[in-house]
Amino acid sequence: MNPKIASFLADRIPATPCLVVDVDQVELRYCELEAALPLARIYYAVKANPALPVLQRLVALGSCFDAASWEEVSMCLEAGADSSAISFGNTIKKVSAITSAYAAGVSMFAFDCDEELDKLAIHAPGARVYCRLLVENAGADWPLSRKFGTSVEHARALMLRARDLGLDPFGLSFHVGSQQTDTASYEAAIGRAAMLFTDLAAAGLDIRMINLGGGFPTRYRDDVPEIDQFATAIGRAMTKHFGNALPETIVEPGRFIVGDAGVVSSEVVLVSRRALPGALPDDAQESVRWVYLDIGRFGGLAETEGESIKYQIRTPHDGSALGPVAIAGPTCDGADILYERSNYRLPLDLASGERVELLSTGAYVSTYCSTRFNGFAPLAEHYI
Amino acid sequence: MNPKIASFLADRIPATPCLVVDVDQVELRYCELEAALPLARIYYAVKANPALPVLQRLVALGSCFDAASWEEVSMCLEAGADSSAISFGNTIKKVSAITSAYAAGVSMFAFDCDEELDKLAIHAPGARVYCRLLVENAGADWPLSRKFGTSVEHARALMLRARDLGLDPFGLSFHVGSQQTDTASYEAAIGRAAMLFTDLAAAGLDIRMINLGGGFPTRYRDDVPEIDQFATAIGRAMTKHFGNALPETIVEPGRFIVGDAGVVSSEVVLVSRRALPGALPDDAQESVRWVYLDIGRFGGLAETEGESIKYQIRTPHDGSALGPVAIAGPTCDGADILYERSNYRLPLDLASGERVELLSTGAYVSTYCSTRFNGFAPLAEHYI
Repeated sequence: MNPKIASFLADRIPATPCLVVDVDQVELRYCELEAALPLARIYYAVKANPALPVLQRLVALGSCFDAASWEEVSMCLEAGADSSAISFGNTIKKVSAITSAYAAGVSMFAFDCDEELDKLAIHAPGARVYCRLLVENAGADWPLSRKFGTSVEHARALMLRARDLGLDPFGLSFHVGSQQTDTASYEAAIGRAAMLFTDLAAAGLDIRMINLGGGFPTRYRDDVPEIDQFATAIGRAMTKHFGNALPETIVEPGRFIVGDAGVVSSEVVLVSRRALPGALPDDAQESVRWVYLDIGRFGGLAETEGESIKYQIRTPHDGSALGPVAIAGPTCDGADILYERSNYRLPLDLASGERVELLSTGAYVSTYCSTRFNGFAPLAEHYI
Repeated sequence: MNPKIASFLADRIPATPCLVVDVDQVELRYCELEAALPLARIYYAVKANPALPVLQRLVALGSCFDAASWEEVSMCLEAGADSSAISFGNTIKKVSAITSAYAAGVSMFAFDCDEELDKLAIHAPGARVYCRLLVENAGADWPLSRKFGTSVEHARALMLRARDLGLDPFGLSFHVGSQQTDTASYEAAIGRAAMLFTDLAAAGLDIRMINLGGGFPTRYRDDVPEIDQFATAIGRAMTKHFGNALPETIVEPGRFIVGDAGVVSSEVVLVSRRALPGALPDDAQESVRWVYLDIGRFGGLAETEGESIKYQIRTPHDGSALGPVAIAGPTCDGADILYERSNYRLPLDLASGERVELLSTGAYVSTYCSTRFNGFAPLAEHYI
C-alpha cells in the first residue's frame, strides 16, 4: 500500500469510512502520462475526483481540464485554471450551463447531435466544437453504452453544419470506455476518426484536433497493461493515419490520474455465515461467509455495480489463511452487495470492528457517494 | 397528478431537478394503512424518506419507526419520537451504533446471526430482539437478496441462545421484498414464521411478536393490488396460523407511505436521435429518440437500476402523438440510463428546455442521490 497513506491511517486513525488521497501520487501519474504521450495535451476528467487539492495540483502542473457540467467548470476556475484550459466535454448540456461556461470564457464544447449543435450555435457563438464518434467499447470494464457518440456519416454532416452555423468545428473525439484494458481499441478508434478527419479536411474544413478520450486503466485486482503499451499503440496508429502531419491531440484521463492515489479505510461491521446462494433457506449445512463493511455501493463504491470494478482489499490478517467471502455494504438495501460472484477470499480471522483498506479508490468514489442513504453521512475525504 | 403539488410547481416554478412532497398525502396513506390493518402497529421505514416534515407528521399520527442506522434513530428523536417507538431494524450494526441507540433508550433490535447476537448481548443487555427469517422474494420489483435473514432451523437456535445471553427474544421478522405485488408472498411467509413461533413458544420462550416487514407497493407505471387485498391476505393467514391468540403484529412500510406523495420536477436537457441499439454505428437509417433529463440514476433515481422501478412521466404535451424513447440522465456516465428496454413512449413534440414530472417519487429518491457526481448538486427538496 502507498506508504504515505499507510502512515496517515496509522497515525491519525480517522473515523471510517473515509477516503485518503495522496496528492503526490496524482502528480506522479500525471507526469508519467505526460512522459508517455509527449505529443498529447492532458485534459483531466474532473468527474473522476473534483477535490480542490487535486485540481490545484494539476493546475500547477499545467494540466487542462475536461468538465462534465457548469459546476465542474466552476470548480476548475476556483482551483486557478484558465478558462482557455477547460473543455466542456459533456455532450448533454443545459442551455443555462452553456451560457454560464461561455460567459466565463470557456470556448471548447463537445456535441454529438443536431439539437446540441443548435444550442451551441445560439448560446456559444463562434466556439470551438468537436463531435463525438460512437466507437466500440469492447475490453472496457465500465463501458459507456449507446448514450453518447454518433456514426461517422452523421458526424460528417454535423461538422459541416457546425461551420454553416458559425461555429469552429475543429475536431473529433471518441471514448473507448472506462477502465479499458485492450490497447487495440484505441488503434481501431483512431483509424475510424482519421478517415473522417481526412475526409473533412478534403471538404475544406479547418479540422485540426483529435480527442482520444480517456479510459486508461488503473490496476485493481487484476493486472492491466502499462501506460507505455497504450502510448505505443496510440503513437503507431496516429503515425500510420496522419504521418508527420499530426493534429493537435488530446487525452482525457481521470481514473488513470487519481485512481491509485486513493485508499478507502473501512470498518468491518459484521462477519457472519449464511446459506449458500441457490440453496433453500433451510439448507443450513452449506454456508457462505459474509463480510459487511461500513461502506458499500451507496457509500461511494458505485462502480462495484455488476461487480465491474474489483478493488484489492487489505486486512490486518494478510498472510494468514484465507477463505471465500461475499462482501456487502452496511445498508438495509439488498442491492448493496459489492462482491458475491467474483471469488473474493479474505482471512478467516477477520472479525467485526477491525479495519480494512480498499486500494486504488481515488477515482469515481467520493462523488458517487449518496447524500445520506440509510442515514449514513457522506464519505469523509482526506487529501495529504 | 397531486393537485397540491401541481399548484406548487405552477406557482413557484422551483429550480430543477427537485422533489416536492405533499405531507398531507403521507398522512392519508398512513391512515389508510392503519384502517386496513387495525391490529398491526406501523413502524415507518425511515430510509424511504427521512425528511423532518415527514417524520414530524408521522410522530403526530402516533407512528412508530424502523431505523436503519444510529443516524436514523437520531432523526426520529429529533422529530419528537419516543425512543420506545423506535426499532433498530438493520441486522448489520456497528457496535458504536448499538451503544448510542441503547443509551438513547432504544430497546428493540433486529438480528439474524450469532455474531450480531453477541454484540447485542454485550452492548444492549436485556434488549428486546427479534430474528429475521429468510423468505422468498418472488413477486417483488426490488428484491432483497440473500444479504439478510436466516433459515428457520438457525433462527430457532439463535432465539434460544438469545435467551441464554440475557436478551429478550420476543419476536420474528421477515421481508418479502420491496414493491411486492403478490399478496400470496405474505401468506407463505406468515406460515413459515408461525411454525417457528409455535415451536419456540412450546420450547418455553416468551415469544409474542411477528414483524411482517414492509414491501407494500406504490402504483408506478403498472397497476398494483390495493392495500385492502394485502390486508385481507395477511388477516387470513394470521388467523389461520394463530387463531384468536394473535401475537403483537408489526409492519414496516416505507414506500407505501411516502411513495406517491412525491413528484420530481425535471428539465429536459436534450432530445436527440441515435442509431438503434444493436445497429452498427454507421447504420444511421434506423434510429431511436433519446430524451435526456436533468435527473438520472445518480441524481436520486437509483431504483431505475435494471429498469426495476418504472415511474410515470408527465409532460406539457400529454394527449398529443407519442413515440418510443430511451430516457437517460445528464451525466457523462454510460450507466446513467433510466429506461432503454421498457417501452417508454413520450410525446413527439417534447423538446429540450421543457419540464416534465416523474410521479410517485417520494420514496427512495432524496437519499439515494449522490453528493455531487459530475458536479451536480444534490436534489433540492420541498415539503408542502
